[in-house]
Amino acid sequence: MSRIPRIVILGAGYGGVVTAIRLQKHLNYNEADVTLVNKHDYHYITTHLHMPAAGTVSPETARIDISKLIDEFKIDFVKSTVAQIRPQDKKVIMEDSTLSYDYLVVGLGGEPETFGIPGLKEHSLNIRSLNSVRYIREHIEFQFAKYKQEPHRTDYLTFVVGGAGFTGIEFLGELVNRLPKLCKEFDVDPTLVKIINVEAAPTALPGFDPELVEYATDLLTSKGVIFKLATPIKECREDGVILANGEVIKAGTVIWTGGIRGNRLLEDAGFETTRGRVIVDSHLRTKEYENVYVLGDCSIVLNEQGKPYPTTAQISIQQAEICSHNLIATIRNTPLKTFSFTNKGMVASLGRGDAIGVVGKHKVKGFTAAMMKRAIDVRYLYMIGGIPLVIKKGF
Amino acid sequence: MSRIPRIVILGAGYGGVVTAIRLQKHLNYNEADVTLVNKHDYHYITTHLHMPAAGTVSPETARIDISKLIDEFKIDFVKSTVAQIRPQDKKVIMEDSTLSYDYLVVGLGGEPETFGIPGLKEHSLNIRSLNSVRYIREHIEFQFAKYKQEPHRTDYLTFVVGGAGFTGIEFLGELVNRLPKLCKEFDVDPTLVKIINVEAAPTALPGFDPELVEYATDLLTSKGVIFKLATPIKECREDGVILANGEVIKAGTVIWTGGIRGNRLLEDAGFETTRGRVIVDSHLRTKEYENVYVLGDCSIVLNEQGKPYPTTAQISIQQAEICSHNLIATIRNTPLKTFSFTNKGMVASLGRGDAIGVVGKHKVKGFTAAMMKRAIDVRYLYMIGGIPLVIKKGF
Repeated sequence: MSRIPRIVILGAGYGGVVTAIRLQKHLNYNEADVTLVNKHDYHYITTHLHMPAAGTVSPETARIDISKLIDEFKIDFVKSTVAQIRPQDKKVIMEDSTLSYDYLVVGLGGEPETFGIPGLKEHSLNIRSLNSVRYIREHIEFQFAKYKQEPHRTDYLTFVVGGAGFTGIEFLGELVNRLPKLCKEFDVDPTLVKIINVEAAPTALPGFDPELVEYATDLLTSKGVIFKLATPIKECREDGVILANGEVIKAGTVIWTGGIRGNRLLEDAGFETTRGRVIVDSHLRTKEYENVYVLGDCSIVLNEQGKPYPTTAQISIQQAEICSHNLIATIRNTPLKTFSFTNKGMVASLGRGDAIGVVGKHKVKGFTAAMMKRAIDVRYLYMIGGIPLVIKKGF
Repeated sequence: MSRIPRIVILGAGYGGVVTAIRLQKHLNYNEADVTLVNKHDYHYITTHLHMPAAGTVSPETARIDISKLIDEFKIDFVKSTVAQIRPQDKKVIMEDSTLSYDYLVVGLGGEPETFGIPGLKEHSLNIRSLNSVRYIREHIEFQFAKYKQEPHRTDYLTFVVGGAGFTGIEFLGELVNRLPKLCKEFDVDPTLVKIINVEAAPTALPGFDPELVEYATDLLTSKGVIFKLATPIKECREDGVILANGEVIKAGTVIWTGGIRGNRLLEDAGFETTRGRVIVDSHLRTKEYENVYVLGDCSIVLNEQGKPYPTTAQISIQQAEICSHNLIATIRNTPLKTFSFTNKGMVASLGRGDAIGVVGKHKVKGFTAAMMKRAIDVRYLYMIGGIPLVIKKGF
């Protein structure tokens, strides 16, 4: 153990970045060594990724360089990919180096959950990083170029979105705006384009207010989305999907937004996990190791009824606030705080200028909701980067 | 035969469009029925296609709607694809209709000539239409997206251009400007990108002034192009090319610019052809049928030494001028004109702001040559569409 305690934060997503920023702000000089480890030298705003994926905005709008967020005099940044966590040795093995820690914060994010549906892992695309959304954007454009070379292949113009959760609905909202533009650019008859949403649950946005869900599905339907609810995917192939009802949809593109699981590194490290997620205690620590905190998609926080909260940016940020407090409290030997989630509301974007949401007890939709979405975005940018970042991102 | 003679023009490339415009201008009312047939409802500036192929400009800059070029009160336009020419019946069979003619002008353009190199037809891309260049642009961008998903596949970042003729060199000039931008956009280390030109002939731009050729290859080399001259391609595969010297180049992209042949429809129609091209008489007519004129890539015009002129935009336009004159002369029973090619010079673009060329007896290079290239472009736009078209295309 070094003279001063060493905190290692894995992952610069919502949880990791906010934890790092809080530590940077509240730790005194020489109170702890903090190291942030991330695969890329940038943080991305995951809740924005559906937009560059559809190609409606540049991926750059979702990216923030980590050097703009942390003060490298106070926090070390290591750009590397984590290969293994060894909590028994208090070590993290990275692809090219090793780090020892006294306290570990795991905010490595999730992975797509395919629920064992054959072919889904191999043949579907996922909205989950800057690289993946650039890939999706290029893939979609490429379908139009390919169709123009092989005009009998109208299946190139069929886009299947699996999952009608938050990401699926927000992505559809962008897609209905983007595809008509691609039709124009590539001289493609818009009536040939099909956007099909396939969802196993009987409703879109399960758990959301039914009136708002209807508003969203009506709006997307009016813009051409075909919803197939209560319809599980049986198999995904290179050329499309087969549904549980036997229907075959030939499609050049299948985007899977149907589920997120935790991170395999936590399973491999020997933590007790459910789908790669660790049930943390009320202080956000693992039950195996008091010095290991887990946040965001890697964690499960149970509500008062003992059910897990859905993992969102909002809960990750709130976790990071408690996590950073508890790290400092542990070092200073002051009382820890207990985590409890405060639902500040949820807004789902439905494309430019439209959204639905619940904020407090209020239901909002349309332009008002879209403005609230923007306000939430601004709030986050302000929280992590202050006014300069808000201005830089064009709000 | 209708009361007034019927002229059918197949193809709205340089030859077909200029012929149509000349006939529109010089024919008197009711002197002839003129029908222009083209697969698309637009003409494209073939000599510009290397730019949208590399993605440096939008394909729209190379496109001109036919309705902007011809007066539909004077000339009928039929958007269709020609399936068969039956000169013995004076008929053209299209995919969905049939046209009878008294005089036929064939300006259907060429097809890539692969010289029997195995796999080249299947696995290489060709710069030859708006659809094909949009495809190439998307394909190139897609390679970057794919590489970011599979970082060990550096072969996705290798671009092989087969052929160092006019199109090959001009395309390389754009590519060296475009790829660094894509590197930036996709966070790709530029040193991983390889641009390789493979040419069977011992020199680039065969027949061009050696000093200028050296200028061009030096410039492109300094921007990263690797030239492999005197190196035929032995085979093209899905994952790259095998050279005659045994070298294997793994590449996600192979663009073939190494040759153009004439059109299979002329072979099928029973004309005597060499690689799909018809040797026309001094009036540009086929030797089999006096009422059939052939222009551009479908035709061979022999020079005084009995050697064929290279087919270029320039020669096609000059042919169209003689062809339209001779059609009118035939109808009016006045003397025909004999075709002779006047070489007004050639300028090859090397990317933005640079070019090489020979104009009259003068060699030009660098910015001057680039300006000359622009002047040639303006001249053509003015010729077919007057001042409004020049303004519309932003010159």
